[in-house]
Parts: sequence; C-alpha cells; structure tokens
Amino acid sequence: MIRLGVYAPDGAPEVMPGDDLVGLVVALTELADGDVLVVTSKVVSKAEGRIRRGTRDQALPGETARVVARRGETSIVRNHLGLTMAAAGIDASNVLPGHVVLLPEDPDRSARDLREGIHAQTGLNVAVVVSDTAGRAWREGQTDIAIGAAGLVVAEDFAGRTDAHGNELAVTLPAVADEIAGAAELATGKLGGRPFAVVRGRADLVLPAGEHGPGAASLVRADGADLFGYGAREAVVRALTGAEADRRPFGAPASADELSAVILRATGLHTSHTRAGGEGLLVTTPRGLTRAVQALAFAHGWVAGTTDAAMELRLRPAAY
Amino acid sequence: MIRLGVYAPDGAPEVMPGDDLVGLVVALTELADGDVLVVTSKVVSKAEGRIRRGTRDQALPGETARVVARRGETSIVRNHLGLTMAAAGIDASNVLPGHVVLLPEDPDRSARDLREGIHAQTGLNVAVVVSDTAGRAWREGQTDIAIGAAGLVVAEDFAGRTDAHGNELAVTLPAVADEIAGAAELATGKLGGRPFAVVRGRADLVLPAGEHGPGAASLVRADGADLFGYGAREAVVRALTGAEADRRPFGAPASADELSAVILRATGLHTSHTRAGGEGLLVTTPRGLTRAVQALAFAHGWVAGTTDAAMELRLRPAAY
Repeated sequence: MIRLGVYAPDGAPEVMPGDDLVGLVVALTELADGDVLVVTSKVVSKAEGRIRRGTRDQALPGETARVVARRGETSIVRNHLGLTMAAAGIDASNVLPGHVVLLPEDPDRSARDLREGIHAQTGLNVAVVVSDTAGRAWREGQTDIAIGAAGLVVAEDFAGRTDAHGNELAVTLPAVADEIAGAAELATGKLGGRPFAVVRGRADLVLPAGEHGPGAASLVRADGADLFGYGAREAVVRALTGAEADRRPFGAPASADELSAVILRATGLHTSHTRAGGEGLLVTTPRGLTRAVQALAFAHGWVAGTTDAAMELRLRPAAY
Repeated sequence: MIRLGVYAPDGAPEVMPGDDLVGLVVALTELADGDVLVVTSKVVSKAEGRIRRGTRDQALPGETARVVARRGETSIVRNHLGLTMAAAGIDASNVLPGHVVLLPEDPDRSARDLREGIHAQTGLNVAVVVSDTAGRAWREGQTDIAIGAAGLVVAEDFAGRTDAHGNELAVTLPAVADEIAGAAELATGKLGGRPFAVVRGRADLVLPAGEHGPGAASLVRADGADLFGYGAREAVVRALTGAEADRRPFGAPASADELSAVILRATGLHTSHTRAGGEGLLVTTPRGLTRAVQALAFAHGWVAGTTDAAMELRLRPAAY
C-alpha cells in the first residue's frame, strides 16, 4: 500500500522582502527526511522582493517572451521561464492593492536555496517544489504546477519498464512534481495564510542530499517543440503576415480599416467599405486569392461569404 | 491546518467485464463519510467491457470527434467526451497484448453508479472520481485528471471572494477534481495492481448524499471556446483550405506532389518540380499570392525561400 500525507500549517505571517523563508518553514512545519516541501511561488517572490507597483497590464510586457494568444482581456504568453500562462504568471491576489507579484526570477534556484538552507539548519534531506497556478489549454479552471524544484524526481520515467501483461510503458512519464504541487494546493488553498505544504510518503522521489536533479525547468516543452505554440487565429496570421502577428491585438473583431490594411498588405487587393446589412467590406478576388482573403478575415475575427457577383467576397465581423 | 491523507491499497485482482466494482472497492478500502474515492478509468472500462481486440491506430477513428493536431506518430484528438488527448485516450497498457482499452462511455455516469452503489451497500457518503492520464499542451509528461466525477465540487469557485488584502479572486477556479486525481496517481502509480485510491481530508468538497453535482464534464472547455482547438499548422491549413484539413496527415513534410496539389487547389498556381539541391518545388507567384503560398508550405512542413528570379518562390521540406 502507498500512503501519502499532505498538510499545510496555518500561522504563516505576511512575508516581506528579505525575510528568512528557511527559518519560517522550519518553525512552522515538522519536516522529516524524504518529505517534499511545497512553497507557493507567491511567498518566494515576496521574500525575493519581486513585488511591483502597478497593474498586471503594466507589468506584462517586461515578463513576456512572446504572445501565444489573445482574446478579449485575456493574454496568454510564454514568459522568460518558458511557462505559458495567462498574464505571464503575474499575480494581483494576496498582495497589497495597487501592486502585483512577479514570478521568482529563477524558481529552480529558489528551490535549491531553500533545500540547502533547510539541510544546513536541520540536517534534513527534503525536496522542495515552488508551485504556481496555471490554466490549461482544453480544460476549465486551474491547477497548481511545479515551476521550481530541487532534489526531486520531477517526472517518473517508465521507459523500458513493462506492466503485469508485458506491455512496454514507453511513453508514460508521470509529471509527479506537478501532481505534488496540485496535491499541496488542496491543502494550502487560495485565500492566503497557508503558503507551505508538506507531502510525505514518496521519499523514493527525493534525491540524495546535495543532488538537486533537473528541476522544474525540465518539464517545460522547448519553444517550437509543442504543437500549440500559438492560438489558432494567431497561427494563421503569423503564417500569412509573418512576425507582425505577435503585435496584433486579438479579441473583438478588427475594425474594417484594420482588416482592409491587412488584406492590402498581404495580398495586394483593395477592399471597399459597405454599410448594407451592417459594417462590411467588399473585395473582388481573382480565384486563386479567395482562400487567402477568407483566411485573413477569419484570423481577424471576421467571416467571409460570397456575393452574387462572381469573384466578389463579402466580409463581415463575426459574432464575438 | 489542513491535513489530507491519500492511500491506495494493494491486492486488487485483474478486473473482468461485468465484475462488481462496488464490492471490490468496499472489500479493499476502508471508506469513511466525506472521502473521495478515485478509480482509474482503466478498471472502470474493464468492468464495463470496453476492451477491444486490435491496436490504438485501429480503434482511433471510432473514438475521434475531430483531429486537433498530428505530428509524426502522434495524433492528438478531441474525443466524444470532449477530452483532448493523445490517441483519444485509448490505452494499450495494463491489458492483454493485442488489445486496447477504450475510455468508459460516460465516466460521469460510471462515477454516479459507483457512488450510489457504495451508498446502497455501506450507507456511506463518498464522492467518486474516475481518473485518466493526459498530456498537456505546453508541459512535458502527463498528469492524472478527472474524466468522471459524482458527488464532488469539481472546481472551487472563488468568484466574489476576497483575499486578506481585499483583492477580488474573480478568475480563480481551482480544478480540485483534477488535483485530487493527480494526488491519487502519486499513490496508485502506473504499474497496475492499485486501481483505487482514497483521498481523505476535504469532506467540504463532498456533496450531500443523493446530490451528484456537475460532474467532470463541466471541466471540459466547450468546443470552440478554447484558443487551442487546433495545432498551429492545422489551424493554418484549415483557414486556407477548409474542412479537408481534418483529414490531412501531419507529420513528416508532405510529399512534393501533395503540396503541389494543395497549392493548385488553394491558389490556382502551378508548381514545377526541381531536384537541384534536394527535392523542391518552384512556383511563380503574383505578388499578392506570395504570403499564401508561404503559409501553405509552412503548414505542410515545408519552408519557402525566394530565388533570384523575381516572383519566384523556392519551396523545400523543412528539417523534421
């Protein structure tokens, strides 16, 4: 039987820049060899002074490596850590109003520092996970994931192992660091006050003292190695117009003037404005360009239908 | 303090179609009111007779609602449950060689049946999660998620709640059902023999007896509501060529003949084959079509460069 325990102590004070997290963890938890300590990135960021005055929108450009998708108010970006997250992982909760918390600069390093500090102070060999909350491409809601890790097998590799029936488990790679972060979230919650959780019962995942392992960075797919590096609309615009796609706002349909300019730039075709049946654009396309204009319209939140006149496309904003 | 316990008993026999899962769970676990029982979809599927002779590739078309992305041997599809998964969630592990296990037909119903059966047999009010293993768009490895649930608050809604600083937690929606499934995986593992886990300590997430809640189906983003309904290449091809994109194989670059046919169909332009410097295609494009041809090439795993001749594009397969 495998038996796990997860607990999150109350009583953590508000953490300020420069605070001694190691001392706080040791005082609040009852760690044992082989435990995994999970610390929310929020409290690590606060101790590391990663608080900024302003809004998420103001902090976003500095945290963005590239925009992955935008729709309405939502910006999903790949940040400098390679994490694809809404608003780059910048958080405006559990911080003084008018301020935001940036992610730790190097969460794997933060985890290593905590692991080494705990070992120095207590002699204990515990693994450390720095957790943060992330949305998922195809599922509602968020789960906590490991954005930093030290001393932990972050993914169990079953390559070469076989199940009881003799089948190879080649592609099975449980991201246990993320599952540990998620389990810890069940205990820490979202209302603040419990930034630490201890997961006990998987000492087999904890590396020997002094060995830090690959860290949570190893769970990030390399840029270009995923199939979902851009939202569907963004991918189309990139393919048709190149790098400018990264700078285009997505959300409500583009204005008629914007789309008109994009079509001219990409295809050389001129459009005319129409007001009949709502705002629209008309464009006469040589047969070979029809698809390209339709694609550009689609990518800018418009839809294209044909008119009675041959070769003529009628474009109108899509319902949003 | 919040304290969770997770345990997964050994000793489960190989489950066969028609087996009594309720009796097995009651015999193997020591359930209490407010527990969450997590059952792997594998064992539910086996009890429900969802085993088929053949390979994953053979079973895939029947399980596919639509293809999301393909690359090489990998097919990521949205299945009839709305789950976006590699190979639609069809599994060839922990089953007799030459057979595959399909997901339960309606995992929320399976969870309800188990919950009701346990209540009828023991009088206990436990929530039930049916778990399966899923990859993520931007992260390596897999985690277990809830594909079925009964009697459980699957996502904690913080809308209207405020943190200790008075900030609204409007967009925070922890998908606790998925975190519970992940925590259970840490105890059940991947080698078979431990298909059940019990998570104790979050009785606040368990609904009153007789209330089953929204189920895990409520965690699936509606088709079209996500920004990543297609892989980047697939999105481009769909936009340019319409529905046929769903049927095109992605992976290694398309053959020159295939790409030639696509360009002709989409743009009306004829290409000529070239062998100079490796396999390639040459196409003379009117200025307005250059972007469209480049996009089609990109979407089919090719890259486009210009030649010395004005208006001429040289296409070649991308390094794969």
